[in-house]
Amino acid sequence: MPKAVVARLSLYLRELEHLVRDGKETTSSSQLGRRLGFTDAQVRKDLAYFGQFGQPGVGYRTGDLVSALKSILGTDQVWPAAMIGVGNLGRALLGYKGFAERGFRIAALFDTDPAKIQTSVDGLVIQSVDNLQKVVRDLKIRLGLIVVPAASAPFVADQLVAVGVEGILNFAPVALNLPKHVNLVSVDLAVEWELLSFAIASRQRAAHGNNGVKGTGSK
Amino acid sequence: MPKAVVARLSLYLRELEHLVRDGKETTSSSQLGRRLGFTDAQVRKDLAYFGQFGQPGVGYRTGDLVSALKSILGTDQVWPAAMIGVGNLGRALLGYKGFAERGFRIAALFDTDPAKIQTSVDGLVIQSVDNLQKVVRDLKIRLGLIVVPAASAPFVADQLVAVGVEGILNFAPVALNLPKHVNLVSVDLAVEWELLSFAIASRQRAAHGNNGVKGTGSK
Repeated sequence: MPKAVVARLSLYLRELEHLVRDGKETTSSSQLGRRLGFTDAQVRKDLAYFGQFGQPGVGYRTGDLVSALKSILGTDQVWPAAMIGVGNLGRALLGYKGFAERGFRIAALFDTDPAKIQTSVDGLVIQSVDNLQKVVRDLKIRLGLIVVPAASAPFVADQLVAVGVEGILNFAPVALNLPKHVNLVSVDLAVEWELLSFAIASRQRAAHGNNGVKGTGSK
Repeated sequence: MPKAVVARLSLYLRELEHLVRDGKETTSSSQLGRRLGFTDAQVRKDLAYFGQFGQPGVGYRTGDLVSALKSILGTDQVWPAAMIGVGNLGRALLGYKGFAERGFRIAALFDTDPAKIQTSVDGLVIQSVDNLQKVVRDLKIRLGLIVVPAASAPFVADQLVAVGVEGILNFAPVALNLPKHVNLVSVDLAVEWELLSFAIASRQRAAHGNNGVKGTGSK
């Protein structure tokens, strides 16, 4: 499943929630697409991955489609998470409004720095990583957010796997080897920047009448 | 172009750079793939988007492929960037090793908070947003990183567009409307978390013998 489809489902969901709040009981692919800048074909194609949601002559029932999208995205479930590593990025993620808006909740904080342990951030007390396994079990934590330096990330991941988390969101710039039953999403912020330089460089090549780049095969 | 392809090109590039440093003059799709956990078919397909890079009986010349991938990704160019908004996320991005490793350079910092202006972070003095246009011109800045709250982001984007930046990397959780000639990459960190809940929920559905979700069409 392309990541872009999941990202668009999330946009459809928020738009549909607006419609429900405004009392609109039905909508259409073209209305939904227009509000977000996508074609109706794109909307239909994205939803078709997951089932048949519209009714001829009626369109989509907004409330039903909200429930279906939440179920697909898993945001109808509760996802208590532990964050390990409370540096600048960790603090930024804690304050990130988009998480709370979508029901994601950071329930426990951990660090290895004695100067940080037992201090509070956003009402949560930072705990020693030594307590990780106990706390994860006690709070029924399902996900781990790894926000430690690359060198510590594999150790932290092993601990999270050992205590049975279902998924890990890894912000450390290092590849993690997890057993297959644990889901991993790795966030490499430099890739976002590369997408931008790639887009600009592609446009430069197009402007010079060269959509590809010179191959090396003919040398 | 799927984002995943660009992300993989970046992995190929780093792997090839290792090979060049190790004195290896040639490599193959299967060797490159094996080192990264991809199939050789995947490597060939990704590279084929951009041209013909291998030679029968020789494989890829590592040095040539490094140059070609850098040109495709635009990382053979210099991309001085201005960061607007020096909060926790901004500081995290400043310290993010992945940026510098790939040649991306934050050359100027801006904020609107009088308590921050004229203070230093990582050797850069935070300046008033009032100076944005002058500094962008003086330092030949090409990109803007928007790390301000959602409410301020459109104003900052307008300023960056007015002074002629080529691209914007937007971390504010808001959709920006830019003229077509300015490239935009928006980073929504909540989407990463949603990818994880989506993956786990998909697996739950598969375990219950239901690969899709219940449609609403039959109601």
